[in-house]
Amino acid sequence: MKLSIVLSTHAAKFQAVAYKGDFEQNTAKIASYGYDGVEPAVRDPSLVDHDSLIATVAKHGLEIPAIGTGQAWGEEHLSFTDPDPEVRQQAVDRIASHVPLAKAAGAVIIIGLVRGIIQNGVSESQAREWMYSGFKTCVEIAGSEGVRIVFEPLNRYETPLLNTAKESLELIDRVGADNLGLLLDTFHMNIEEPSIEESIKTCGDRIFHFHVADSNRWYPGAGHLDFRRILEVLFSTGYSGYVSGEFLAVPDADVAAQKAIDHLRGLGL
Amino acid sequence: MKLSIVLSTHAAKFQAVAYKGDFEQNTAKIASYGYDGVEPAVRDPSLVDHDSLIATVAKHGLEIPAIGTGQAWGEEHLSFTDPDPEVRQQAVDRIASHVPLAKAAGAVIIIGLVRGIIQNGVSESQAREWMYSGFKTCVEIAGSEGVRIVFEPLNRYETPLLNTAKESLELIDRVGADNLGLLLDTFHMNIEEPSIEESIKTCGDRIFHFHVADSNRWYPGAGHLDFRRILEVLFSTGYSGYVSGEFLAVPDADVAAQKAIDHLRGLGL
Repeated sequence: MKLSIVLSTHAAKFQAVAYKGDFEQNTAKIASYGYDGVEPAVRDPSLVDHDSLIATVAKHGLEIPAIGTGQAWGEEHLSFTDPDPEVRQQAVDRIASHVPLAKAAGAVIIIGLVRGIIQNGVSESQAREWMYSGFKTCVEIAGSEGVRIVFEPLNRYETPLLNTAKESLELIDRVGADNLGLLLDTFHMNIEEPSIEESIKTCGDRIFHFHVADSNRWYPGAGHLDFRRILEVLFSTGYSGYVSGEFLAVPDADVAAQKAIDHLRGLGL
Repeated sequence: MKLSIVLSTHAAKFQAVAYKGDFEQNTAKIASYGYDGVEPAVRDPSLVDHDSLIATVAKHGLEIPAIGTGQAWGEEHLSFTDPDPEVRQQAVDRIASHVPLAKAAGAVIIIGLVRGIIQNGVSESQAREWMYSGFKTCVEIAGSEGVRIVFEPLNRYETPLLNTAKESLELIDRVGADNLGLLLDTFHMNIEEPSIEESIKTCGDRIFHFHVADSNRWYPGAGHLDFRRILEVLFSTGYSGYVSGEFLAVPDADVAAQKAIDHLRGLGL
């Protein structure tokens, strides 16, 4: 099992990113704990030296399976579903600007909250059309460079758009592109999926990336999810990608990162 | 097992109340499905004819184990933790105004979101002190009439105040009154408790009321919670109160109510 963990390239508000702050120092710690990769959360790729980021990770023997983009929503409120067409365009442009970094790193690009919410005065059907357009455009741009895009079903409290595996597969069908897939996250699945295991089976080879946090969004092992059963089902679909930790820095980032890898390696999968 | 279900005495916004609208018609349906009680959600008891409400429920052979108060927050934004002392007083007065109805009905009074959230400009410690004062006063008023108050730990997305059984027990200890207890809700516990079963055991005889919804807040049986195991542990604590359904009206209120009772009665507990 290849394990990675989310870390931010800049200080960020999003609480489920355990590591914020100094990128190289954190990368070194993550490598020392035995992880195989890091998943950088990058608000704006133009503010990051791509070569330096990739070299820093490689220097510590790690890979970059995926790049998170949600801080563009969290810090700048860019989304595919903003009523302002300029903001929608900025959101698409921002995702497009991740393509060179993702290509160089061999990473997928994650679309989380950049899809947005249903804002005041916007109908649900309008929001869904704007969201579809945003995905369609980004997937085409990424596809032309051989880069894959994943989006993450999030629980109902974070957005009403794309909560479940079922509606996510419908969007994937509608976009109709091989380079669009899913990032499933166990914390969100625990709230939204009738059966975590059945939903993983249904998504099958459309799962391009996988996040783990326990039921309380702490490190795996701190809640009541059965990671042995969940990961056995995941691997039974033929999934050979990364299992990436996105959880709260509780009691702190270092302890959480170590507890997570102890628990997951301890499964012997 | 005594089963009840939440219904509103008036049309209400709160989506997890399956039944809204005509009270007598809904009470008759609930009785016809085999429930033993109804749990009215009452925004303002002064707008309800107490004798008529109690007589309507009794006419259909049902009991009233608990009365919900959360619409005072949902519709009027009354809370113990509002920065305006007049609003805090109104929230306490509103809970106090439930005491005669609760006494006549033999019901506990539920404090859900009337405890409030941490509002802008209010420190967490200040919010917690106001919340404590609100509870203390309401519990004393209710206690003088022999009425019990319960509060419900809610998940982090609804309020940062009182998410877990652990912090709830600390508040109960601090208030130090026999008539203050817990309402545990399986939907919230699935997100917040490291182990649902262990938390039930820890709360023990302080559990005065119990809500069921499945992991996705649909009717029990629609998600991945193991209600046999959960309820066996609940009853092993000596709990002899109601198991009350508070879930979304999905696919609609009638189907949800019938599916819930089929699933729960089918456990043979």
